Amino acid sequence: MINSFGNLFRYTTWGESHGKAIGVVVDGIIPNFELDLDAIQKDLDRRRPGQSIYTTSRKEPDKLDLLSGFFEGKTTGAPLSFIVHNTNQKSRDYTELQNLYRPGHADFTYHKKYLNYDPFGGGRSSARETTGRVIAGSIAKQFLTHFHQIEIEAKLIQVGKVSGELAELEAEILRRKQKGESVGGKVEIIARNVPTGLGEPTYQKLDALLAFALMSIHAVKAVEIGDGVSVVEATGSENNDEMDDQGFLSNHSGGVLGGISTSQDIRAQISLKPTASIYKKQKTINKQGETVEFELKGRHDPCVAYRAVVIAEAMVACVLADLLLLQRALSPIED
Amino acid sequence: MINSFGNLFRYTTWGESHGKAIGVVVDGIIPNFELDLDAIQKDLDRRRPGQSIYTTSRKEPDKLDLLSGFFEGKTTGAPLSFIVHNTNQKSRDYTELQNLYRPGHADFTYHKKYLNYDPFGGGRSSARETTGRVIAGSIAKQFLTHFHQIEIEAKLIQVGKVSGELAELEAEILRRKQKGESVGGKVEIIARNVPTGLGEPTYQKLDALLAFALMSIHAVKAVEIGDGVSVVEATGSENNDEMDDQGFLSNHSGGVLGGISTSQDIRAQISLKPTASIYKKQKTINKQGETVEFELKGRHDPCVAYRAVVIAEAMVACVLADLLLLQRALSPIED
Amino acid sequence: MINSFGNLFRYTTWGESHGKAIGVVVDGIIPNFELDLDAIQKDLDRRRPGQSIYTTSRKEPDKLDLLSGFFEGKTTGAPLSFIVHNTNQKSRDYTELQNLYRPGHADFTYHKKYLNYDPFGGGRSSARETTGRVIAGSIAKQFLTHFHQIEIEAKLIQVGKVSGELAELEAEILRRKQKGESVGGKVEIIARNVPTGLGEPTYQKLDALLAFALMSIHAVKAVEIGDGVSVVEATGSENNDEMDDQGFLSNHSGGVLGGISTSQDIRAQISLKPTASIYKKQKTINKQGETVEFELKGRHDPCVAYRAVVIAEAMVACVLADLLLLQRALSPIED
Amino acid sequence: MINSFGNLFRYTTWGESHGKAIGVVVDGIIPNFELDLDAIQKDLDRRRPGQSIYTTSRKEPDKLDLLSGFFEGKTTGAPLSFIVHNTNQKSRDYTELQNLYRPGHADFTYHKKYLNYDPFGGGRSSARETTGRVIAGSIAKQFLTHFHQIEIEAKLIQVGKVSGELAELEAEILRRKQKGESVGGKVEIIARNVPTGLGEPTYQKLDALLAFALMSIHAVKAVEIGDGVSVVEATGSENNDEMDDQGFLSNHSGGVLGGISTSQDIRAQISLKPTASIYKKQKTINKQGETVEFELKGRHDPCVAYRAVVIAEAMVACVLADLLLLQRALSPIED
Repeated sequence: MINSFGNLFRYTTWGESHGKAIGVVVDGIIPNFELDLDAIQKDLDRRRPGQSIYTTSRKEPDKLDLLSGFFEGKTTGAPLSFIVHNTNQKSRDYTELQNLYRPGHADFTYHKKYLNYDPFGGGRSSARETTGRVIAGSIAKQFLTHFHQIEIEAKLIQVGKVSGELAELEAEILRRKQKGESVGGKVEIIARNVPTGLGEPTYQKLDALLAFALMSIHAVKAVEIGDGVSVVEATGSENNDEMDDQGFLSNHSGGVLGGISTSQDIRAQISLKPTASIYKKQKTINKQGETVEFELKGRHDPCVAYRAVVIAEAMVACVLADLLLLQRALSPIED
Repeated sequence: MINSFGNLFRYTTWGESHGKAIGVVVDGIIPNFELDLDAIQKDLDRRRPGQSIYTTSRKEPDKLDLLSGFFEGKTTGAPLSFIVHNTNQKSRDYTELQNLYRPGHADFTYHKKYLNYDPFGGGRSSARETTGRVIAGSIAKQFLTHFHQIEIEAKLIQVGKVSGELAELEAEILRRKQKGESVGGKVEIIARNVPTGLGEPTYQKLDALLAFALMSIHAVKAVEIGDGVSVVEATGSENNDEMDDQGFLSNHSGGVLGGISTSQDIRAQISLKPTASIYKKQKTINKQGETVEFELKGRHDPCVAYRAVVIAEAMVACVLADLLLLQRALSPIED
Repeated sequence: MINSFGNLFRYTTWGESHGKAIGVVVDGIIPNFELDLDAIQKDLDRRRPGQSIYTTSRKEPDKLDLLSGFFEGKTTGAPLSFIVHNTNQKSRDYTELQNLYRPGHADFTYHKKYLNYDPFGGGRSSARETTGRVIAGSIAKQFLTHFHQIEIEAKLIQVGKVSGELAELEAEILRRKQKGESVGGKVEIIARNVPTGLGEPTYQKLDALLAFALMSIHAVKAVEIGDGVSVVEATGSENNDEMDDQGFLSNHSGGVLGGISTSQDIRAQISLKPTASIYKKQKTINKQGETVEFELKGRHDPCVAYRAVVIAEAMVACVLADLLLLQRALSPIED
Repeated sequence: MINSFGNLFRYTTWGESHGKAIGVVVDGIIPNFELDLDAIQKDLDRRRPGQSIYTTSRKEPDKLDLLSGFFEGKTTGAPLSFIVHNTNQKSRDYTELQNLYRPGHADFTYHKKYLNYDPFGGGRSSARETTGRVIAGSIAKQFLTHFHQIEIEAKLIQVGKVSGELAELEAEILRRKQKGESVGGKVEIIARNVPTGLGEPTYQKLDALLAFALMSIHAVKAVEIGDGVSVVEATGSENNDEMDDQGFLSNHSGGVLGGISTSQDIRAQISLKPTASIYKKQKTINKQGETVEFELKGRHDPCVAYRAVVIAEAMVACVLADLLLLQRALSPIED
């Protein structure tokens, strides 16, 4: 339960960054589906660090190995087990972490919860866990496209105070990186061609599940659907999406009414905090509870939002795939 | 699954506003717990409309009836079944709704999903469903206080462009009401004394579950944890919560790191859209797909955020109670 | 979770025999299904005691009240909440039970588990809980008939050492009753027209779920599928069901191969222990742990298997309905 | 969901016999538990074929590789991922299977369900899937022993018409093998030192979960608890377990009353059908639906019950571990 996501389309991730490998088991697979493994690998490549100056320079060539549930290019209906080997286990600069809680990281809470400590940083809280999300999400995207031509696209729309095109956002990231700082970012996710009727009216609400899925991504501190926080300042007549015989006249709702998709674009935004790892002195405590100063070495993304784009797509895809299966199960008798 | 919330501390709601009654079954109850039914009734009274000029003038005296799982003032461990009778079923002004989709409501999506139509408005999307949430949440709050002195408090902090004390917010609601308009609002929820270690590092994350729970409340369009959307503009050195031997030096995180509670105050904010029901002409379509004009009669809350306070507390309490049971199950062997 | 059965077609029961009412909430309901409430009531009538000399003479007129999810003769897709009031709460002869553990009953384990004691006997272990099962099962049967003309029929096939027609079995029950004794019984359940493909190959196996469902019925001590215990003495050539181009040549398997339905009749048998309540002196202990003698008063079924027939049908129906929804969700793409 | 077992202590298996590897992910792991990997390997060795003349002569050296959740000899609380490589993929004699449904196997139902066909035999229905069960069960056994000194032991007690000591049962298997036949068997499982209170009174009943778990083992056609099918012929006074101040005076119940453990030995029996693979001509059909004759080549266990012993232990252990965690979560407040 704890390391699984979804009900019918369900995946389970395992592995830590210091281990031999990480992986994901994806269950609830419709049989005889032509699965494009290259597309999955491409999504994985979008996730991994070391690809541009805007991200960390660590190299993690994530080559995926599919061990089950797949035969002659198609799913069999059996669970798909993917494994990605950790190739550079030993080269990490993590010795310094062995005795203190990095500010903004899960080290403190993790230790207090488990009464043990991962000297290599992160345990299951490592961003490396998102590899499994991207794999499952990539499969989900293929399902969604096959059944409903649903397309999901996420993009970085703000870094710090800068909104605009990617080039401008990258420039801002670079400015912060040069100062040894990190910066927050905002990502928008759009899902197109989602048919009416996905989501359930009380707890398996589409927007609630999106919030759950997106808030589970590392560093996300806010999830907005449609107009998001700005609805607070709106009036009903501004916010309601009127309709006429051609359809909706606006999309303040972000494609969800009463937890159920309207057929308009699903629109969500996530706000990601600045990378916790910075090259400045910070106060923290060690495992003995003593105040210490901490200054980071190693290589880190200056803006985690930059790489979160593909993870956000993945989580949205998994939610939609799960609800699609649920709707298949409970589709109504024609009135 | 669909109408249930939670894993171990789990409740299931049932009922529509036009039916004879609504109710909730609460399962996962620790036996021999002294349950204060008056406290539940008080929370219910905070939820129901008709109590002030800031809310609708409909009267819905929600008198709760507990039918099982309770003996001589204590829980037995069996599921608690609560029923609340709908007393004013017939007096509603809903005849007009029989043939059109109210803008901003779930009428359209509900009909498209189920291929049937609730002429009384709302079906399971009715705000009346929140009665069950408040009951379950009130029980959860009692558990949390008993085991950890956890206190949960929500309050309205913004209405439209006005932030400030409740009196000012109420004045703003009144101004909008007099114009036949509705307005959005923001609610902040604080949970105090939450011990370190609640929440799991990947999918049963405390913040992800809070987002799920809070986004499932009617009209909520954004969930923020800690500094929320403002983290986008922060740098790492501003956003990280440093520590010294006395504890954390700030709480930008909102009491959650890596999905696990830090022991600081849990802090969340929700943004609720303006009530969809307004007294202005709006364009919509009827069940035949023809454009029609719609102007509301009946009585409605001008600001749904006003009454959402107790529901927000309830949902946060249910999340914490569920995670508390999970932590009881999986609490570590001392290292 | 604890008081719920099923994944997609899921019901949750609540209530104790000494309370005001008992009930069941049924979720996972396909919308716009014409539900026959009279058929449910008829199944309830088959379950209740007091109908013949072969069962207890206690009268429990179980009149069902449906409170939600139903409109103009059809399901809406919302959860169905049924309530049955306990009419003869006060007339019971249970005062004697207040301080001892009845042999063969759950009193001892219930008390040790919950550290509380239901002086009226049974708590959630009361056979009255099966009311909810029968209601949910009756709905499931209607679904199954609608979608696949599936028919489920259970019957008593053995009482004590007597196998044969019902009249002979009733005679045997009467003989035992006159001696103040109780007797065990065997019930066979047949499900016809179950299509190939229900059940999943590892853990949601049709036969495993049937075993789970049927063993959860009070007093059941064995579940057999197909040839059951007699397979131990068979050879492979005797036990294998050969096929030719007309279909299977035998049905030793009971309609299940590898956990998946074959399209032959599903055939299961359950063995129910003799009613624990007998009119003979028995040794037991009281709550203080002291040895006491116990002799029953009150009225009780001499053979619980007699009334278990409709409950067995219900449980089989719920399993099949749940797997039918699952198969709808995951039905394959044509090769 | 489909390939997972358990709620809190939950494992998920993946892999087919013809793939590169099979594996299991075990979640719900108490942190800092000293896990004995050698004990797991020993259980695996008990499961694998090729170890004696009573089983198939195929060699499958199941060497287990643990990839996550384990650090310096202890569990970390993260999911444990085990992988076992399939070493002799290519040496199998399965070419003949490519076009027909073997009698008594899942080939027919599997093909009808998934609309695809595993030419190597079995897909997820392969007995090789039980490797994951044995691994998870071995971990569960270690937990149970640690927390409650619970010991689980299964043994073969009957083969064909022969009951008695293992040597006699082995002789009977050999007799059948020499005739090219297979034979059924009965396995008894005893769990000692199970404390009172495991299991829930309605659907998470200990006996119902045992029936579910045990019936999910390949070839099992009956599950009996305590006196099992023989209760049909018993009277209440024979079947009730009386008590005195020293405890229970008998154990007809098999250690379960009302779905809850009594503290006596848990006693269950399973009946396994004869191996479907026999060296005799049988009628079946091919994928085109034509009648064909089939005669097996290859090497197969003459009595699957022989190797099922360790699998039965595993499933019982997983049920108890899961209920133990549930009881930890919901343990009562002292009255």
